[in-house]
Amino acid sequence: MNARLDTVPPMSEADLLALGARAFQGLGLRAGDARQVARILMLADLFGLATHGLSRIESYGERLTVGGIAARPDITVEKVAPALVKVDGANGVGPLVGMHALQAAMEAARQCGIGLALARGSNHFGPISPYSLIAAEEGFASIIGSNATTTIAPWGGSDARLGNSPIGFGVPHPGGDPFLLDMAMSVVARAKIRNAFKRGESIPDTWATDRAGRPTTDAGAALDGFLLPIGGHKGYGLALMVDLFAGLLSDAAYLTHVKSWSDAPEQPQNLGHFFILIDTRRLGSSDWLEARMRDFAAILHDSPAADAARPVIVPGEIELAKMRRQRSEGITLDATTYRLLQQYAGRA
Amino acid sequence: MNARLDTVPPMSEADLLALGARAFQGLGLRAGDARQVARILMLADLFGLATHGLSRIESYGERLTVGGIAARPDITVEKVAPALVKVDGANGVGPLVGMHALQAAMEAARQCGIGLALARGSNHFGPISPYSLIAAEEGFASIIGSNATTTIAPWGGSDARLGNSPIGFGVPHPGGDPFLLDMAMSVVARAKIRNAFKRGESIPDTWATDRAGRPTTDAGAALDGFLLPIGGHKGYGLALMVDLFAGLLSDAAYLTHVKSWSDAPEQPQNLGHFFILIDTRRLGSSDWLEARMRDFAAILHDSPAADAARPVIVPGEIELAKMRRQRSEGITLDATTYRLLQQYAGRA
Repeated sequence: MNARLDTVPPMSEADLLALGARAFQGLGLRAGDARQVARILMLADLFGLATHGLSRIESYGERLTVGGIAARPDITVEKVAPALVKVDGANGVGPLVGMHALQAAMEAARQCGIGLALARGSNHFGPISPYSLIAAEEGFASIIGSNATTTIAPWGGSDARLGNSPIGFGVPHPGGDPFLLDMAMSVVARAKIRNAFKRGESIPDTWATDRAGRPTTDAGAALDGFLLPIGGHKGYGLALMVDLFAGLLSDAAYLTHVKSWSDAPEQPQNLGHFFILIDTRRLGSSDWLEARMRDFAAILHDSPAADAARPVIVPGEIELAKMRRQRSEGITLDATTYRLLQQYAGRA
Repeated sequence: MNARLDTVPPMSEADLLALGARAFQGLGLRAGDARQVARILMLADLFGLATHGLSRIESYGERLTVGGIAARPDITVEKVAPALVKVDGANGVGPLVGMHALQAAMEAARQCGIGLALARGSNHFGPISPYSLIAAEEGFASIIGSNATTTIAPWGGSDARLGNSPIGFGVPHPGGDPFLLDMAMSVVARAKIRNAFKRGESIPDTWATDRAGRPTTDAGAALDGFLLPIGGHKGYGLALMVDLFAGLLSDAAYLTHVKSWSDAPEQPQNLGHFFILIDTRRLGSSDWLEARMRDFAAILHDSPAADAARPVIVPGEIELAKMRRQRSEGITLDATTYRLLQQYAGRA
């Protein structure tokens, strides 16, 4: 029996947060830091994004154990202009660096209307939508991005030189659901190609290239090659821009300078992130924003569905519905993650 | 003989700028305003983006003539927080509103490190890369977006409810070429489908849907349908986010509230834009940025090309090379645009 398919009884949000926090304490983090990391990852589980949730304790834990990530970093926050902050993550766990940057950018935006935090010396910071949700609940719109280990070839190139640079956006909706978008730049995730390969199926030639950089419909050849970005040269350009803002301007590593967490788990990655926050309370009243956001969503929902079984949805809708359901019914983790959390928590 | 294919002798940048400015004066604009509008459109011609260059005087001119655009708007710039500015374009010509917003956002960024201008009451503001270039030459990185007339159906929907929301990015490179990305969210422009239709060719099913919202390979059916966004739901989400920042937060029109400039040329569109500017001089020395930008471009250029005849390029490279060539050899306009410019200039 596959332990990953095995499940454990649903847990409450409070219990899962406490378990996650204790697990990261067991890995050497300070109590408050462990709680912040667990909160970001647990929100991913609440959203149904299990691959970016507490299951990440597996890779984070390995790297913390071999010293590739610092358990007790001395993170510094330097204000270089009234609305501009540089964060040195000192090689801490990504979501901890991310939360420092988010808080600093929100504080700057509270004072100046818009705020920017650029983080360096970081690691994989989890999914983006949890940060956008936290910001939206405090009235901030957000644009957040990170660079990543290289998996994509330059457009027309034939080796991996840029990452799947995720970018996320959030817009608050007082009294309603915020819009949340969290996306990577590849057409599909590698896992989808792996599944096609296992089933012996071909893939569309827009998903990936072979190792020579040529688009392929052969899933096996694609696994030896590179993911293709959305919209071809457009997604290539977008991925580069995310890396320029997240990596180059932040003074972090970028492109091939980013170390692979799997090939060199004991080495600092020096990932970079950017957090742009906008205080929507400077733009109009809560009623003004609420009415516009409700109207905006209604216009989209009212478009007749091409397939009646699949009505039009808006970004974040699936994740927020899943969150509400799991908040009332409990959150279900896979057994492997649950056992790992318990194991690390036992050390705390 | 097709007048559009007919050409006129190459002109110098100074002469073309003077002609363009006089033409917009002939349409009723103040001299200084006319020069700003002509500068943005002429930069598009320099970049080789003729469809977004001075040829736009055709549609701008029609709307100015019927009073759909105000020739002498009273544009207001309101600072609502130290780094946050609201611009009311008062239904002026788009590039004029855009230049007011760009200048206001650069001024805010100069003071605070990052600045945001949100513009409402605007019109088609031309291409984005000229704004990004002007900003980059003064040391600012930029993220700029605009909403647009509806041409795209919501993902899974079956009527046009969102625009092809262009977004652009720029990162300065002291002493070298800045990175400039300027893209719309559709996989291809409508013109590309029209060309396939004329040649009797089919199109990939990722380009457009038929009028019922179903992906189609029939170019004719696609012309009755809607453009598809890059990456499917990803591009749909991105286009919405651009509209949320450019239209909804700016207090402009959004989605179906944006009036069509072709169906209702005499009515204000109330388009919105956002301009996020970052002062890179707060982040490090000019040498620091120059070395990193040079290295970043070199890493990409060094990727072996999948097709030896098509080496890897970086965003903005084609446009900036074209600009250099035309600055030395002169700029060539199509005859229709040239005659229209002369005709309007004759009224000044």
